[in-house]
Amino acid sequence: MHILSAASALPGPPVDNAALARRFGMDALWEQWVEAFIGTGARHLALDLESGKVTTTLADLAADAGARALAAAGVTAGEVDAVVLGTATPDRLMPATVNVVADRLGIDQVRTFQLQSGCSGAVQALDVARQLLLAGETGTVLVLGGDVIARFYDVTRDLTRAAPAELVNYVLFGDAAGAAVVSADPRPGSAQVRALFTRLVGLGREPGAVLEWFGPADRHTDGHHDRPAATEDYKAIEKHVPEMTEEVLLELLRAVGWTDRDVDLVLPPQLSGRMTRLITDRLALPAAREVSVVDHAGNCGNAIVFLQLERALTEISPGERAIGVSIESSKWIKAGFALEGGAS
Amino acid sequence: MHILSAASALPGPPVDNAALARRFGMDALWEQWVEAFIGTGARHLALDLESGKVTTTLADLAADAGARALAAAGVTAGEVDAVVLGTATPDRLMPATVNVVADRLGIDQVRTFQLQSGCSGAVQALDVARQLLLAGETGTVLVLGGDVIARFYDVTRDLTRAAPAELVNYVLFGDAAGAAVVSADPRPGSAQVRALFTRLVGLGREPGAVLEWFGPADRHTDGHHDRPAATEDYKAIEKHVPEMTEEVLLELLRAVGWTDRDVDLVLPPQLSGRMTRLITDRLALPAAREVSVVDHAGNCGNAIVFLQLERALTEISPGERAIGVSIESSKWIKAGFALEGGAS
Repeated sequence: MHILSAASALPGPPVDNAALARRFGMDALWEQWVEAFIGTGARHLALDLESGKVTTTLADLAADAGARALAAAGVTAGEVDAVVLGTATPDRLMPATVNVVADRLGIDQVRTFQLQSGCSGAVQALDVARQLLLAGETGTVLVLGGDVIARFYDVTRDLTRAAPAELVNYVLFGDAAGAAVVSADPRPGSAQVRALFTRLVGLGREPGAVLEWFGPADRHTDGHHDRPAATEDYKAIEKHVPEMTEEVLLELLRAVGWTDRDVDLVLPPQLSGRMTRLITDRLALPAAREVSVVDHAGNCGNAIVFLQLERALTEISPGERAIGVSIESSKWIKAGFALEGGAS
Repeated sequence: MHILSAASALPGPPVDNAALARRFGMDALWEQWVEAFIGTGARHLALDLESGKVTTTLADLAADAGARALAAAGVTAGEVDAVVLGTATPDRLMPATVNVVADRLGIDQVRTFQLQSGCSGAVQALDVARQLLLAGETGTVLVLGGDVIARFYDVTRDLTRAAPAELVNYVLFGDAAGAAVVSADPRPGSAQVRALFTRLVGLGREPGAVLEWFGPADRHTDGHHDRPAATEDYKAIEKHVPEMTEEVLLELLRAVGWTDRDVDLVLPPQLSGRMTRLITDRLALPAAREVSVVDHAGNCGNAIVFLQLERALTEISPGERAIGVSIESSKWIKAGFALEGGAS
């Protein structure tokens, strides 16, 4: 599988920690806590922070990113044989957002798949695309990923009394979508996926993150629900994600026969700015330049890897080698890929 | 691809139209309207109709169906190379229900994919499984599908004043999950998939069905939301689904070189009892026995095809030929497969 292009779409202007603190009535101490324990500087949000209204849908962002990726690859809508979208936050349960995006891009008469996925969803979507290419019935796939976590921002909440496990959701995430055009055949400037895997490793483990949706039967007369909408086991995440990242790296290196000195670019998990630093320190790849987007885009879920790939494709020279790792803490999935720069 | 086994799981006892009419204070005229215009006799519901509480999750049903399918195929959890689940109504946005089900079945260290899909989701899940098998890295796949639409039943609503487009949702659907074990290699009693396709045909078309989810930003202080949770364009569905079904049938016959006289079993779309009759009348397959489950199980979304396959596998003789068709009206997807009974 060759990645011909990658692109991204971010809603509105960046929202920094000071702006969030102002909006939610938090003090300077809280802002320092965000800097120290989260380490993410800003994120883009698909909502108007004042009114709490969602301004941008996943379909808006994914169609935007998809159009850019197609244009960058020089691929027309009619040349796309399949569309795969990964997201944890589809606009609706039906129709699947992937089909709305395909419609907007003028793509029709092809297979479309939408994966319900967490932080490793971009790699899962690339995995499905790769399997389609290997199966031989498909030549070019538009792969998309994104999340609009803004729908979990309740601006009516008094966050000054919220528990840290809930507060963290208001600073950790960002909204974004990304896209890549992949093909069985290389083109000038494309990068080759030398190895890629996704693997559930959740047996007997509690979820590290839970994101609920609510329907009419979950509706209570006081306007609230019987369970929190989003919770994270941040301690479990901080404990397991760095070691799982290292395991994925080692497995990928073994698979392609590279050593740690061969890695020119590393695309680490982007759970938070602080977690990314912990992880890259642990990996200690002597020659690798880091490709991180978390500091300005936040943890944007299924979009992350596409944002990283967009930068990596501009930075990778012919023959250079990149490793990307995603870890889903929700029910614990390992995912990663090894990439090699093609001839320009 | 060979289907080694199929199984299903239904929650609670069947709920007939009289029981629904009683619960929602509808009169005998309404019951007659359901009989005449929907034509579905009963369905199983994953909720307690009195209290409105959801009693059974999709994970409960899918794990149950999955365990039965594995047992029927004589395949252990450790022999499963991948799990694919199709649903419109996941238990949560994260973790994906497929991973909870895998955990319960003791399946780990494999690829898992969850498709966000409507009525053609079972065929889309089988399509992903088939692509995995064709790609050659995977030998045995557990394919699951199901829906718990019960979470859209609001027992506090006064349905005597609801519009028909909304009312229809309370009688059309049922809750269920199903499973199939598929493999690149046949076994005694398995059936071979001779052709299978899924294809978006939604370009420029309005969705025929919409299913919303709600998050904190959608929460209003009076406990209600600014848009209906579920709507159907029943007229568009009634107009397009029969003709689309015929198109899928003809395309499948061409692909495998069968005539309409060669079809021994037909697994038609199961939108409602009445729609199924309209469709099978139109198809006019002279030698085909119909495999329908809608009259006792309702339109159970992503489960339907598995319930049909469970029956078809017991009915299909070696060399007999079956055609299955699914149409998703949400954003218009054609899906179908041709099956041939293997040696017993």
